[in-house]
Amino acid sequence: MNLEEIVNSIEPADQQILGQAQEHTSRLVMPLRALGRLNEIGERICAIQRTLKPSVKSKAILVMAGDHGIVAQGVSAFPQEVTGEMVKTFLSGGAGINVLARQTGASVYVVDMGIIPDVVHHTGSSDTKGAGPGAEKKLIIRKIARGTKDFTHGPAMTKEEALKSIESGYEVASRLVQEGVELLGTGDMGIGNTTPSSAVGAVITGQSAKEMTGRGTGVDDETFARKSDIIESGISINAPDPKDAIDILSKVGGFEIGGTAGAILAAARFRKPVVIDGLISTAGALIAYTLCPAVADYMFAGHRSVEQGHRIMLEHIGLEPLLDLGMRLGEGTGGALAMHIIEAGVRVFREVATFDEAGVSESVA
Amino acid sequence: MNLEEIVNSIEPADQQILGQAQEHTSRLVMPLRALGRLNEIGERICAIQRTLKPSVKSKAILVMAGDHGIVAQGVSAFPQEVTGEMVKTFLSGGAGINVLARQTGASVYVVDMGIIPDVVHHTGSSDTKGAGPGAEKKLIIRKIARGTKDFTHGPAMTKEEALKSIESGYEVASRLVQEGVELLGTGDMGIGNTTPSSAVGAVITGQSAKEMTGRGTGVDDETFARKSDIIESGISINAPDPKDAIDILSKVGGFEIGGTAGAILAAARFRKPVVIDGLISTAGALIAYTLCPAVADYMFAGHRSVEQGHRIMLEHIGLEPLLDLGMRLGEGTGGALAMHIIEAGVRVFREVATFDEAGVSESVA
Repeated sequence: MNLEEIVNSIEPADQQILGQAQEHTSRLVMPLRALGRLNEIGERICAIQRTLKPSVKSKAILVMAGDHGIVAQGVSAFPQEVTGEMVKTFLSGGAGINVLARQTGASVYVVDMGIIPDVVHHTGSSDTKGAGPGAEKKLIIRKIARGTKDFTHGPAMTKEEALKSIESGYEVASRLVQEGVELLGTGDMGIGNTTPSSAVGAVITGQSAKEMTGRGTGVDDETFARKSDIIESGISINAPDPKDAIDILSKVGGFEIGGTAGAILAAARFRKPVVIDGLISTAGALIAYTLCPAVADYMFAGHRSVEQGHRIMLEHIGLEPLLDLGMRLGEGTGGALAMHIIEAGVRVFREVATFDEAGVSESVA
Repeated sequence: MNLEEIVNSIEPADQQILGQAQEHTSRLVMPLRALGRLNEIGERICAIQRTLKPSVKSKAILVMAGDHGIVAQGVSAFPQEVTGEMVKTFLSGGAGINVLARQTGASVYVVDMGIIPDVVHHTGSSDTKGAGPGAEKKLIIRKIARGTKDFTHGPAMTKEEALKSIESGYEVASRLVQEGVELLGTGDMGIGNTTPSSAVGAVITGQSAKEMTGRGTGVDDETFARKSDIIESGISINAPDPKDAIDILSKVGGFEIGGTAGAILAAARFRKPVVIDGLISTAGALIAYTLCPAVADYMFAGHRSVEQGHRIMLEHIGLEPLLDLGMRLGEGTGGALAMHIIEAGVRVFREVATFDEAGVSESVA
């Protein structure tokens, strides 16, 4: 299936089932819609999965990793080696995303979308033994190239690489869905990747680089000011077409951003909810949304990141974040944490008794 | 132990351990404090539990139930019978709090603090069989009286009843802590109880009845306007002393509000974190805080309720809610949901590797 066929195969969520689900919510033994967004979540997942028995028991998080040529411009507080080092940490289970995924019972799949080093995962029998559900960790290699190019000197990647990154993300996520995953989360790793993400956000939302730029992992004042100039200059040199997602991704994007876009397309195509995380995940979401606006029906915004551009990007898609806890780590951590909220919405929908079942008197109003 | 002795035995959280915990957070393999409030939560629980190995594995939610004489003034959209009917629903496991407590692995204890009917819990062997951890449901009878009196005609209860309600809540929660509970949640059930809660909030925060009044379970415009007048008139007739928590509780409070205050005192006394829920829980928190400001160190605000007075009450104690999801059910549901966030903070603190352990390069900034 090529990208055009994928996009054409995506349908909006089912409005008729949504109506039936809302009717069910009104019978639950509580004041009308008294659980607010939990009630909405349960209903949305019915409409996404085309059922009044929604399920998000099987969860997986795709941590898309890539390196970035733009790091040569000094936009990050961490050295580029950290991308590969963190990929190894994900595989040993010690990173933030591992801890939060374990808590919510989600498996973690790390996808090498284009990091510089070669990381190999030795899955010894001791690796997952006794680790319990949700502790699974796997490395999937879809290396498009060893990092993108510095986009202040020309495009970050070729159009073919951009397409390939989306198709690879689509293929990996599709396979997980076919293996039974009912709720997907997207995460990222890539030193320097807030810079291309803000650039993608600026082009698609039409906001200035200044408004879209945050401090990433924590750069100082001088670097912060320079980062916004670099984004502006990258956009001005490459002049991406704001209506052409592939053009934007290839000129100022990243391999993990493309992979995330592909994973979101797969979720929408196969009618599964997908939780996006922070700035980088949402840059991928914007690429997917620009290709196919119907994907918005399938997405949940896990949280609002500290990164200032994030709010603007979520508003562009029409997503209201579930959490706002001052987080700015990435890796998929905000999405993993929000999976508890999403599961709560589904459980409330399925497990709360109706007024009739409980034998409780209804409102006299 | 009488109330004065309880209050005198409560100490603030340990600032030295807080400092050690912050030092540990700075070594975790992520940009400095990049998990925001999750990092703070982990550290606060260290300071509360006096350990660098905090634990919230064993969780319990106390749903305090009471009836209210003020219902005679037509302040609720539901008939008074619903209090007892919902207590039965909690015991059969079909209410919102049961579903959310099961998800987070918390046991639910329903405390009859003073409902009108006699509810009996038949614990057959089939009741909890195979229900798994967190599915336990128990009824505890501490009936102070069969409902409070209508506080527009005089005090809601005697001072002795007010004291007894706090001491009963303290005793019930103390026992749970002694049985090993590491994280407490407070919840409520009582038709009409947003009215006394708003009254308690108005007296303690010094705000007007109008600003403190919300729609409760969903009253119409006319009742909404009358409700605020009723609260104002109850305060004016009884003239509670804003510095005297027992005076306030007895004049315009409720038995479940007193019970909640007592449970919070117990958590603070025995150095356990306690998650409060919405308006009614927070009225109990205000009573406990007025008796002993140090309890604020032990409390987490689970969520911000739709009820407009809630924000003002939380600000008075200095608590920032963890969730804001348009919820207004009570029962402890906001607190139960927030337990996932609190557990996440503890897990991040204990399970994320340090830079050294992971072999990852630190910031060059």
